[in-house]
Parts: sequence; structure tokens; C-alpha cells
Amino acid sequence: MNNALRINGPRLWQSLMDLSRIGGTAKGGVNRLALTDLDRQGRDLVVGWGRDAGMTVTIDQIGNVFMRRAGRNQALPPIVSGSHIDTQPTGGKFDGNYGVLAALEVVRTLNDHAIETEAPIEVAFWTNEEGSRFVPVMMGSGVFCGAFSLETAYAARDVDGKSVGEELARIGYLGEQVPGEHPIGAYFELHIEQGPVLEDAGIVIGVVPAVMGLCWYDCVVSGMEAHAGPTPMGLRRDALQVSTRIMQEVVAIANRYPPYGRGTVGMVQVFPNSRNVIPGEVRFSIDLRNVSIALLDTMHDEIVAFVAQVRGDSGLGITLERVSHFLPCPFHPECIDAVRSATTMLGYSTMDVVSGAGHDAIYTARLAPSGMIFVPCKDGISHNEIEDAQPAHVEAGANVLLHAMLARAT
Amino acid sequence: MNNALRINGPRLWQSLMDLSRIGGTAKGGVNRLALTDLDRQGRDLVVGWGRDAGMTVTIDQIGNVFMRRAGRNQALPPIVSGSHIDTQPTGGKFDGNYGVLAALEVVRTLNDHAIETEAPIEVAFWTNEEGSRFVPVMMGSGVFCGAFSLETAYAARDVDGKSVGEELARIGYLGEQVPGEHPIGAYFELHIEQGPVLEDAGIVIGVVPAVMGLCWYDCVVSGMEAHAGPTPMGLRRDALQVSTRIMQEVVAIANRYPPYGRGTVGMVQVFPNSRNVIPGEVRFSIDLRNVSIALLDTMHDEIVAFVAQVRGDSGLGITLERVSHFLPCPFHPECIDAVRSATTMLGYSTMDVVSGAGHDAIYTARLAPSGMIFVPCKDGISHNEIEDAQPAHVEAGANVLLHAMLARAT
Repeated sequence: MNNALRINGPRLWQSLMDLSRIGGTAKGGVNRLALTDLDRQGRDLVVGWGRDAGMTVTIDQIGNVFMRRAGRNQALPPIVSGSHIDTQPTGGKFDGNYGVLAALEVVRTLNDHAIETEAPIEVAFWTNEEGSRFVPVMMGSGVFCGAFSLETAYAARDVDGKSVGEELARIGYLGEQVPGEHPIGAYFELHIEQGPVLEDAGIVIGVVPAVMGLCWYDCVVSGMEAHAGPTPMGLRRDALQVSTRIMQEVVAIANRYPPYGRGTVGMVQVFPNSRNVIPGEVRFSIDLRNVSIALLDTMHDEIVAFVAQVRGDSGLGITLERVSHFLPCPFHPECIDAVRSATTMLGYSTMDVVSGAGHDAIYTARLAPSGMIFVPCKDGISHNEIEDAQPAHVEAGANVLLHAMLARAT
Repeated sequence: MNNALRINGPRLWQSLMDLSRIGGTAKGGVNRLALTDLDRQGRDLVVGWGRDAGMTVTIDQIGNVFMRRAGRNQALPPIVSGSHIDTQPTGGKFDGNYGVLAALEVVRTLNDHAIETEAPIEVAFWTNEEGSRFVPVMMGSGVFCGAFSLETAYAARDVDGKSVGEELARIGYLGEQVPGEHPIGAYFELHIEQGPVLEDAGIVIGVVPAVMGLCWYDCVVSGMEAHAGPTPMGLRRDALQVSTRIMQEVVAIANRYPPYGRGTVGMVQVFPNSRNVIPGEVRFSIDLRNVSIALLDTMHDEIVAFVAQVRGDSGLGITLERVSHFLPCPFHPECIDAVRSATTMLGYSTMDVVSGAGHDAIYTARLAPSGMIFVPCKDGISHNEIEDAQPAHVEAGANVLLHAMLARAT
């Protein structure tokens, strides 16, 4: 039927470049924080493109935007695709924006060929996915699925004390629809991988079976600050040396649970942090991830046990607090199949890539069948002004999205 | 002869407490940075006490102060004792100040008993030992012994841009004597240990045979910043994990060369230092010490070789730069013997304690026979407002100083 249909790659690329100019940085990145004037300009541009494509626009109370292309059967829940258009303060052109504009390109392509679908098609963008200006991250989709309340989200404030509620109203995106009441028949999200797996393997399309769960911890090791010269090795209580044992174990635990085990110490603070003073206290973060609940639980148990062992060995005070915990999110088999089948039909090279990062799709998955598609990004880098992707990959991902959505909507 | 002579412990303690009020902090410490108005007030107080004790005062061009009690033979070079009265910004009452006021107490005691010495006795305090406001540390004694020039010292500026030369003139301590031309027959410096060895062993007097040499390094490990979730363990270039291997080796090297080997990583900076980002770069300091040149050289060779090995293993960029190098400083056998004999005569418990920290005596040792005496300080802590020492130990140390100086001066 429509197997020969392809999106317009140069048009999609041009839209990405046009949107990236709003908040564009000297280094080629984008700084368009959620609910700023720049975010408003970006939203207005995308909504204008949506109206130009004949779509009707609904905004909910947390500022999520749904742009609808009618189906033959308007009673069916829409097949939705999207992502977010807010960026990190030193973000790139593709993260989030690509998912939204690729969904728009799907609609433009259907229009070009006057193709009707049974179910309506919608392009969505979710408020404040990045969480750079307001926490928590994935705010719009989180409120939408009931992970936290509208009141909690409204009350979140930026460093200048401005609240989400005030800023939504100020930029004109405080809608009336109750979040979560907007129907979704299925949800697809196309995204750059934000990791190096596809590029490393030379593969164009990543089928995403799941998003990893994660545990975040704060670890504090308390020793005794002392002079580096006069204090013999045997009388030291060196908080950094004890910390290095735990830091290494974080990686050892991840390596024991391949291929999806991840272990990272990203943030370290040493006190007093002076060249000739033995550290009296070290604070560091631990990030553990895996794709199954059972393996993530095992990794959790192992870091807790290891810290207890080091506490006993060293005699130092050590606290380990779990500050965040997301369960793994498997995507819906029918959505995964739709992505896989579209990729096969299109003849792109493909592999499964479990997402290590969170996305709005983990929240939509609580309410509707959801799935994701990844394309490679240069050096696996995102959240960075040098974030980049190849036009051919950007085009391929949008073609997969087109055919996955068509399969669900027709 | 004078074996029954003892200093006046309460008077010494009272002088310590009186001086500590100038720049005294709420937490019981002292903030009296070099060449500030508070330093002037401290200097004026001590010089006033010196004049009250009948001493004549000489100031050299770097602000070092020598207060002289005449000997029978004024042609003999004086037997000098002292230390410094500047403090760290959150320093204590004893570091440096104790050495100066104990020397003053020696003179007061000799005056009390109308004891004449063959050689003159002098009380000295050296400018800017701490180096907190102006670098380098041990500035006054360093210029005195020719380690660096007067011009270099004058040009040193604090964070507000004020120079040593300007500040010396402003507070009235820019003297006329050429540094180094002041004769010294022998030099003794009494100091709190600044380490835990004496307290841990329950010993009152530390005879100091030498000061350790040290090598300071800056180490920079350069990996690849990447997202903690999407990046598989096998594709990481984690600068922190590689750094922990070197950090642990620093301690292992020190432990291979006991009892005076020391190895410390005191300062660590992680970039970008974000919870969910694999560190792309880590910078840290390394501090290696030992008492013999040969052992310190061996430790240096071992850290250089280990870093080269890790560079090869990991494939990461690693630089190791030696930024400071002090040779070990053995003290003069006759001064060591004078301290040991005085301690034995007085009946105090004693042990040898190699100094792990630098002192003005390592510079005077280049020009004249020098020696040091240590007394315990609470928990080995100094450079801290909670720095503390017991009155009985403070008194004992000054008695040892008295008899060591008498042995050299009579």
C-alpha cells in the first residue's frame, strides 16, 4: 500500500535548523530553557507549522501541546508521536527537537500524498523534559501520567524564584485540558541515541525494547582531616583513600551484570580540598542502572553490602543514601514490533538498544502502548553544544517513525 | 650549674593567651595574616615585651625581627631561637607563636635569675611563615638564607593586589639590615608537633633529627565525558576510575618506605562533576615525602613509572608534573645533642620525631647549626581554630629550649 512512502529529509533537516536558531549559541548549540521567552518563541514556531499543516491544537494545564491531524474515525484514540523542545543550557539541536519535528514531518508527508488514516495522528511536545530550569525532569509527561501532581509541578521554582505556574501563564501556554485526560492510542518517540552504541556498531536504527531503571545514591565518607607531612600512614583516617575503594566497586558491580549494567561516580567533593591536608570528608554520587528489576535490586544490595564491609574494615563513618529510584520501563510489544517491522521493510540496518537515559515515553508507557526509535549521534554526545547527527540518519529515523505510525493508525 | 633553672610556665601561658587575643576568633583560634594591621599589633606587642625584657631590636629588610640580650662576649654570634607570629586565616594560638614566646620566656627567666651567658641570646620572628596571604611560604627565613631574592618577596601580592614591599612599609616593619647579614651562632626552634605521633605514644618531648623532603605533583587524567546511562561500560573512558588507581598507588608507595614515607592526595577536581555524566577529566594533587634523599627519589621514580603504566593500560591521556621539590633537611648533630641532653637532664619522656612539615629552621640550617624541639598538640591538629596544647607540655618544651640554649651560649 504505502510501502513506497518516504518523508522529505531536506524539509525535516531545514525545520531542525530553523528551530535551532531560537536560542542558538555561538558554538552551534541551543540554549532554550523551559518556559523562557525563547521557549515561547520555539513553541510558537512549531505550533505555527502545525497549523500550517492543518492541525488543530490542544494545550493542557501543564503546557503539554497536542497537534491533531484528523482521522477517518475521530472516535479512535490518536496515534501520538513527539518529544520535547526545551533544551539544556548548553544543549544541542537534536535532543527532543528531532522527535517533535520528525512527527511533524510525518504529518506533512501524509498531507503531501493526501493519505488518510483511520485513527487521528497527533504531534505532541511535553513541557520541561530536561529539568534544567525546574525539577523534576520530564515534568509535563510526569504530570500527564500522574507520577506527581499538577500542584507540585506548578510550585517548582527556578533559581530566581519564578514558578512553573507563573511562567506557564506568562508565556501563554497554560492550557485548560486536564493532564492525562487527553486520549492516546499509542505513543512513539524518535530520539538520538545519546550514547555510542549505534555509531560504534555502524548501525542506523536502534529498536528500543526498554529504558533502564536507575538508583542514585549520595555517599559520604568521614575520616579525619590532618597534615599530610606529620601524620604517619598508620595513624591516618583518609576519607579519599577509603572512597576510592567504593568508587572502584561501583564499576565492578556494573561489570558483573552485563550487558546493561551501568555504574558511574560522576560527582566528587573533597574537604578541605587542600594539597597538603589529608581529606577529612569526601562526598560523591553513585549512579547504578540496569534493564531488569531483579538485576538492579541485586546491584543495589551489593553496593549496600560493600559499603557496610568498608565501614567495618576502615572504621570510618560512611553513609549511603538512595536519593532517586526509577524502575526499568519495558516498552509495549506491539509498538516494538511496529518499529522493528518498519525498519525491516525499509531495509535499514538495525539492532536493539536499551535506553540508558530517561525519556517522556517512560511516562506515556504508563497510560498507553509506547515505543521508541533511536538513531546514531556523533560520538554518542548529547546535552552538549557539539551534539550532532547525520542527515541520512535523521531521515531514516523519520521514515521508520512514519511507517510505524501508519501501521498503528491505518 | 644552672641545672635547677626552670622557666615560668604560667607566665609563658599568659603571654600566649594575650597574644592570641589579637586576631582572636569566636571559635578560639587566631586569624592574623602576615603584614596586616593585626600582624602589626602582634609584632608591636611582642617587640614591646622584648624591650621590657631589656632587649635591643633589629629589623631586616624583609621584616624579620631579632631581639638581643647581650652576652659577656658581644663579638660571639648570638644563640637564636624563635619562629613566626603570623597565622593561617583559621589558625590556632600555638603554631609559631609558641616558639617565639618560649624564646622570650627563656630571656625573662635568665633575667629573673640574673644569669649571664657568654654569647648573646636572641629572640627572632620571621616574616610570613604561613604563606596564606603571600606566597612563597617561609618567606622571611627564605630571603634570609638566600633561597629566593628580596625583590621576589617584595613583588609577591595578595588577592587584593597589595605587595609585600608596600605592606611591610605600611605597617612599619621594613627594616634596614640586609637579610642574611645578621649573624647566627646556632638556631633552635620550639614548635607544636602538628602531628599525632607524640600524643599517640604518650611522650612529652620530640627531638627532631630532620625535616622530611617532599615532592608535590599535579596529575591530570583526560578521558571522555559521556552520559552515565547510554554509555556501555566497555566504551567508557572514565577519567575518575583511572584516577582512583593512581590515588591508591600514592598511598601504596608511601607504605613501601616506612616509617617516614608519606603519600597524600589532598585536592581533587572532577569535570564536569555532574551526577549522571562520566567524568571527562580529573585533576588531583600528589604529595610524597620521606626523610632521605634516596628514598624520596625512589618514591618519585615509582609514581612516574606507575603513571606511565596506567597511561599505557588505560589509553587515557595522563600528565604528571612535579610542581615543588624540597630536599630533606637533617639538623646539626650538635643542636640535636643539645636538645637531647637537656631533655634527659630534665627527665622528660622523649623520642625522635622527624618533622613532616616545613619550618623556618630548614632555612636557618643553611647558614648556621640548627635544631628543633616538638611538644604534643591535641589530636595532632594545627592550622585549625581548635588547635590546642597542654600547659604542662608547653612548659616542658620551653624548659628544654632554655637548657639547650644555655648549653650552646655559655
